[in-house]
Amino acid sequence: MKNLAYYNGQYGELEEMTIPFGDRVSFFGDGVYDATYSRNYKIFALDEHIDRLYNSAGLLRIEIAQTKEEMKTILNEMLSKMDTGSNFVYWQVTRGAGVRNHIFPQDGSKANLWINIYHKDLVDTYKKVKLITKEDTRFLHCNIKTLNLIPAVIASQEAHEQGCQETVLHRGDRVTECAHSNVHILKNGVLVTAPTDHLILPGISRAHLIKGCKKLGIPVDETPFTVKEMMEADEIIVTSSGSLCLAAEMIDGQPVGGKDPVRLKMLQDEAVRDFEEGTA
Amino acid sequence: MKNLAYYNGQYGELEEMTIPFGDRVSFFGDGVYDATYSRNYKIFALDEHIDRLYNSAGLLRIEIAQTKEEMKTILNEMLSKMDTGSNFVYWQVTRGAGVRNHIFPQDGSKANLWINIYHKDLVDTYKKVKLITKEDTRFLHCNIKTLNLIPAVIASQEAHEQGCQETVLHRGDRVTECAHSNVHILKNGVLVTAPTDHLILPGISRAHLIKGCKKLGIPVDETPFTVKEMMEADEIIVTSSGSLCLAAEMIDGQPVGGKDPVRLKMLQDEAVRDFEEGTA
Repeated sequence: MKNLAYYNGQYGELEEMTIPFGDRVSFFGDGVYDATYSRNYKIFALDEHIDRLYNSAGLLRIEIAQTKEEMKTILNEMLSKMDTGSNFVYWQVTRGAGVRNHIFPQDGSKANLWINIYHKDLVDTYKKVKLITKEDTRFLHCNIKTLNLIPAVIASQEAHEQGCQETVLHRGDRVTECAHSNVHILKNGVLVTAPTDHLILPGISRAHLIKGCKKLGIPVDETPFTVKEMMEADEIIVTSSGSLCLAAEMIDGQPVGGKDPVRLKMLQDEAVRDFEEGTA
Repeated sequence: MKNLAYYNGQYGELEEMTIPFGDRVSFFGDGVYDATYSRNYKIFALDEHIDRLYNSAGLLRIEIAQTKEEMKTILNEMLSKMDTGSNFVYWQVTRGAGVRNHIFPQDGSKANLWINIYHKDLVDTYKKVKLITKEDTRFLHCNIKTLNLIPAVIASQEAHEQGCQETVLHRGDRVTECAHSNVHILKNGVLVTAPTDHLILPGISRAHLIKGCKKLGIPVDETPFTVKEMMEADEIIVTSSGSLCLAAEMIDGQPVGGKDPVRLKMLQDEAVRDFEEGTA
């Protein structure tokens, strides 16, 4: 298949698939998701992504119908139907369906499972990116990977319109994360990255970056940094499941980074190696 | 019809209707809505609700395909198909459909129009309600009536589990609004209500309440009030399209209000009269 869409056991090409009008996603965006990439029909870091999905669901009291093993089996089965082994693998669970009502469904039904898989290449790890900045006005549950993503949509569109790839969000001076990535800096040989509180998503690529630092002997400082510190950093690094370890060359039209290319390349090479090993 | 669901010109009973898997509501909750009630097949305050929907859409740059007049015509046409004239009339617009991508659709397509109409009575205006309080952790765009409603879902569920009807949200000391209503207080003969900034929805029932105060000679003070001021108020009033003018008798298990029953009843009678006149 080219673009596989799955809903509660039924699947087909995206364009042909429909979902119930009354799924609670329609009225409340009432669900959580996760996503990663596959290569050679192997889903990268699948256990970690599944764990995070269950964690997101648990924090919102969404009851998933499948066990983690069952979900893995379904995802791998759907992936096997694809024309190519290199794909974006996306899935979500939503809190039931029915007549619109803020309170949880009273029928004891469990979450609806959605899957969407299509060919998509990782972003070129070694191509520098341009960023903009924007005040972070999102809710205070950014640790949960929800489908309430309007602020990320708007921030992404604004970056796009300025010829940039991502938007760095900040609450006052403090940098939190990007619209759909985490952001980190290298300064004096140390990787500085915001701690995983309710203001940022605990990125799986972020966790792999920290693991990479440890392997390479680069110290990690999990402390929030400011916009000014970012602008003056040796390197600014953006990570997500599709952007393993990108460096920024420009923020808000100002040249940035480029002052620690050796450590940057070590981290990028390690991220690529890690992904290739995990999908070999 | 019993529960009419409409999507881009097609309609049927809710249970039979489906929507495209790739509607952007599915991935981002990327849409805005409005809702009101009908009686005698007349939709209450329809122009005001339509104006607010276009305002919400404009703030998020969602392009609506219909003119306001066309939308009114469609809503009235769908209402005419109902078995009863007293209904909940809900509609929303979502930002297109397609392969998941944060940035806006590049095909120039306009918003999808959704309608959902079903019989539902207004909440009894004269029955007192019980409330709980909760820190307001929502995003800073509460003036836009979006489909990113997970915090409202959770707050509503928590009220329900405590045998209450609504949750009063507050940012620190400052009361903002309820999960799906505005909240106001009567103190020393004055109606105090938060100003319409980015922290609250500009409620249409709120606007009608203020109009009612003016008609009845009750002064209105559009200033934020605190949780403490609410607990000590003469009356606490909750308003929404389905709850015209409810008074609270209990908040977090503490008895509240009940100290200005005369003005309260004047406001309630006026709200009921206003709704009946608008749907006569």
